Amino acid sequence: MDGKSSSNTAGKPLRCRAAIARKAGEPLVIEEVIVAPPNPREVRIKIICTSLCHSDITLWKLKDPPAIFPRILGHEAVGDCLSEKSNLCTKFPFSISPWMRDETSRFTDINGETLYHFVYVSSFSEYTVVDIAHVTKIDPAIPANRACLLSCGVSTGVGAAWRTAKVEAGATVVIFGLGAIGLAVAEGARLCGAKRIIGIDVNQDKCEIGKKFGVTDFVNSRNIGDKTVSEIIIEMTDGGADYCFECVGLTSLVHEAYASTRKGWGKTVVVGLDDPSSMLTLSTFELLYSGKSLMGSFFGGLKPKTDINILGKRYMDKELQLDEFVTHEVDFEEINKAFDLLLEGKSLRCVIWMNK
Amino acid sequence: MDGKSSSNTAGKPLRCRAAIARKAGEPLVIEEVIVAPPNPREVRIKIICTSLCHSDITLWKLKDPPAIFPRILGHEAVGDCLSEKSNLCTKFPFSISPWMRDETSRFTDINGETLYHFVYVSSFSEYTVVDIAHVTKIDPAIPANRACLLSCGVSTGVGAAWRTAKVEAGATVVIFGLGAIGLAVAEGARLCGAKRIIGIDVNQDKCEIGKKFGVTDFVNSRNIGDKTVSEIIIEMTDGGADYCFECVGLTSLVHEAYASTRKGWGKTVVVGLDDPSSMLTLSTFELLYSGKSLMGSFFGGLKPKTDINILGKRYMDKELQLDEFVTHEVDFEEINKAFDLLLEGKSLRCVIWMNK
Repeated sequence: MDGKSSSNTAGKPLRCRAAIARKAGEPLVIEEVIVAPPNPREVRIKIICTSLCHSDITLWKLKDPPAIFPRILGHEAVGDCLSEKSNLCTKFPFSISPWMRDETSRFTDINGETLYHFVYVSSFSEYTVVDIAHVTKIDPAIPANRACLLSCGVSTGVGAAWRTAKVEAGATVVIFGLGAIGLAVAEGARLCGAKRIIGIDVNQDKCEIGKKFGVTDFVNSRNIGDKTVSEIIIEMTDGGADYCFECVGLTSLVHEAYASTRKGWGKTVVVGLDDPSSMLTLSTFELLYSGKSLMGSFFGGLKPKTDINILGKRYMDKELQLDEFVTHEVDFEEINKAFDLLLEGKSLRCVIWMNK
Repeated sequence: MDGKSSSNTAGKPLRCRAAIARKAGEPLVIEEVIVAPPNPREVRIKIICTSLCHSDITLWKLKDPPAIFPRILGHEAVGDCLSEKSNLCTKFPFSISPWMRDETSRFTDINGETLYHFVYVSSFSEYTVVDIAHVTKIDPAIPANRACLLSCGVSTGVGAAWRTAKVEAGATVVIFGLGAIGLAVAEGARLCGAKRIIGIDVNQDKCEIGKKFGVTDFVNSRNIGDKTVSEIIIEMTDGGADYCFECVGLTSLVHEAYASTRKGWGKTVVVGLDDPSSMLTLSTFELLYSGKSLMGSFFGGLKPKTDINILGKRYMDKELQLDEFVTHEVDFEEINKAFDLLLEGKSLRCVIWMNK
C-alpha cells in the first residue's frame, strides 16, 4: 500500500480500476469505479499489490449471505484491540459486512450502482478506503510483494501455532492440509520449536514442499488403505498429537483432527473456513471425558498493529520464511488467473500487482 | 477409607455387604458379596463412608453401555499421571470399565456370579479392591465425611474453575446449574478471585444457597420471558462472560453456555455429564470467527495425588468450604434414600456411612 494520493483528488471522488465480483463464481470483471473520499478516521489508500487468499475464493463462490454482489474482494488487516486476550475488538467487531462501519459504501460503478466492500478492505482495486483502525504501518524495507502476505494468510497460519495454540518446544503438531495456511502453521510450529510436524494432504507433491517449511513427516491421506487419518496419527504419535490444525476448511476434517489429538490435553484449532451452514457434531460426554479442547483461530490470534511488525522483523532477520510462499506473480489484468491457480492448487500465494 | 483389614483375611477372599445395582434404575439391593484379595499393586480397602455423586445416578439409570449390570457403583479418585498437562494418564487411562485393569473382577455374589466394578472404585461396599495408582493418602485430621467430598464432585467443580479454565482475578463467570458441582465451581471461582459469579438455575431456592458459595447474581431461567439465557447473560455482562460452565449435563445448555461467552476469548467448560448419545452441534465457521474455545473438564483437571491434599489443606485452613455441601447423612442400609434425595434435588451431598 502507498499512503500518497495526488493532492488534486484530496476530498474528492476519484476514478480508478477495480476487479468486481458481479456474480457468485463468475470471473471478476475489471471496470472503472468511483472511490469516494475518506470520511473522518478513514484513509484512502493506493494499492501497490495484493495477494489472493482462499477466503476471497470462499466468499466469491458462495451464493448465500454473508456473500453479496457486486463486491470488491481482496482483504488485509481486520481490526485491533487493547485487550491482551484477543484480536477481536468490541469497538470494531469483525464481520464480513458489505459496508464500511457507518453502513455505507465508498465504491460506485460508473452507472452509479453501489459496489460492496469486503471485510473493510476491498484491495482488488487501485484505490480503496479503509478505517484507520485497520491500517498498520510497516517497515518500508520489507518488499511489498512479501509484506502483503503478512496481512492475512501467512500471519494466520504462523499465529495459529504461535498465539492461538501456543505450541511449545518439543511438541507434536499435525496439520490437515498443506496449502499456504497449513504451511504457514508448519512455519509457526517450527519457529516455536515443535519437535515433530506431521503434514497431511491428498497431493503427494506437498511431501517435498512441506519439508521447506519444517514438516518432518508426511501422510498422503489417499494412501492409507482402510484406516482413518486419526488411526494413523494415533499410531504414529503413540496416543495422539499435542496439537492438530484444520487448514482445509472441511468440517469433516475437524472431526478427524479432534480424534487425532492426545487425550488429556490435545488441542484442535480450526483455521480453515468452511461454508457457514456446515456443522460440527461432537459428543459432550466424549468432550468431558477426553479433556481435549477445541478452538477457532481468527487471523492467528494476532494483534495486527503489533504482531505484523514482529513477523516483519523476523522475516528481515531471516528467521521467518516468506519468499517460498510466493509461487506466482501476475498483473492486475490477469487477476482471474490468480483465482484459477489457487483453485487448481497450483499456487501457494499469487501476488497481484496493480501497476507494475 | 481405612487401610487396615484384619490380618486373618490377608490374602484370602472376604465376605461383606455391598449395595448392588442389578438393573438399570431399580433400587440398589444390599447383599453379601465376596471380595477377592488384592493382586500385586492393588489394595483392599475398608470403606468408612462414601458420598453419592450424580454420575453414580447417570450410570445407574443408563440402560446402554458403558452401563452394565450387576455392578457395585460408588466412586472416588481415578488415576494419576506424571505429566504436568493432564490428569488423564496414558498408563492408567480412565474408563467406565466394568473391570479392574487386568479385565477381571474382584467381586462375586454369594452364588458365584461376577459383580462388575465402577470406575475402578466401587465404594458402595464395605470392602473394595483398588489399584494403588488410584489411592491418595490424606491428612487424617480431615473428617471422613468431608474428605470423601474431595474424591469427586467438589474437587471437580473447584478444579474446573481453578485448573481447567484457570479463572483469573476480576473475571466474570457464569454457571449453568447450581447443584453440588455448580456450587463447587462457584467456590473455585471465588477462590480464584472472580469478580462476578452469575448462577443460573430453575430452582429459586438456589438464589439464597448460591450466595453461601460466592454466587453474586442469580438468574432463574424460568423467569426470563421470551429471551434466551444467552441473551440475558450478554446484556448483563455487556458482551458475554469470560467463562461459562455447564454443570447440568444437558447438551442444549452447552450451546447456551457457548453463546453466552465473550467473543475473542470466551471459554466454555463442559462439566456436566450428558447421555453419551447426546451430540453438540457447532458451526465451524462461527467457531473460527468467534475466537471462542470449548473444553471438557474431567475431575476438574486435578491431579489427585497432589491436588486433593492442596484442597484438604485449604479446607483445614478454612478457605475452602466443604461443610455447606453436606446436606444429609444416612446409614448404608438407607443408600436408596440418598439416591431419592439427589434425584429430587433435595440434597447437595449425602454422605453414606458404612458402619457408624
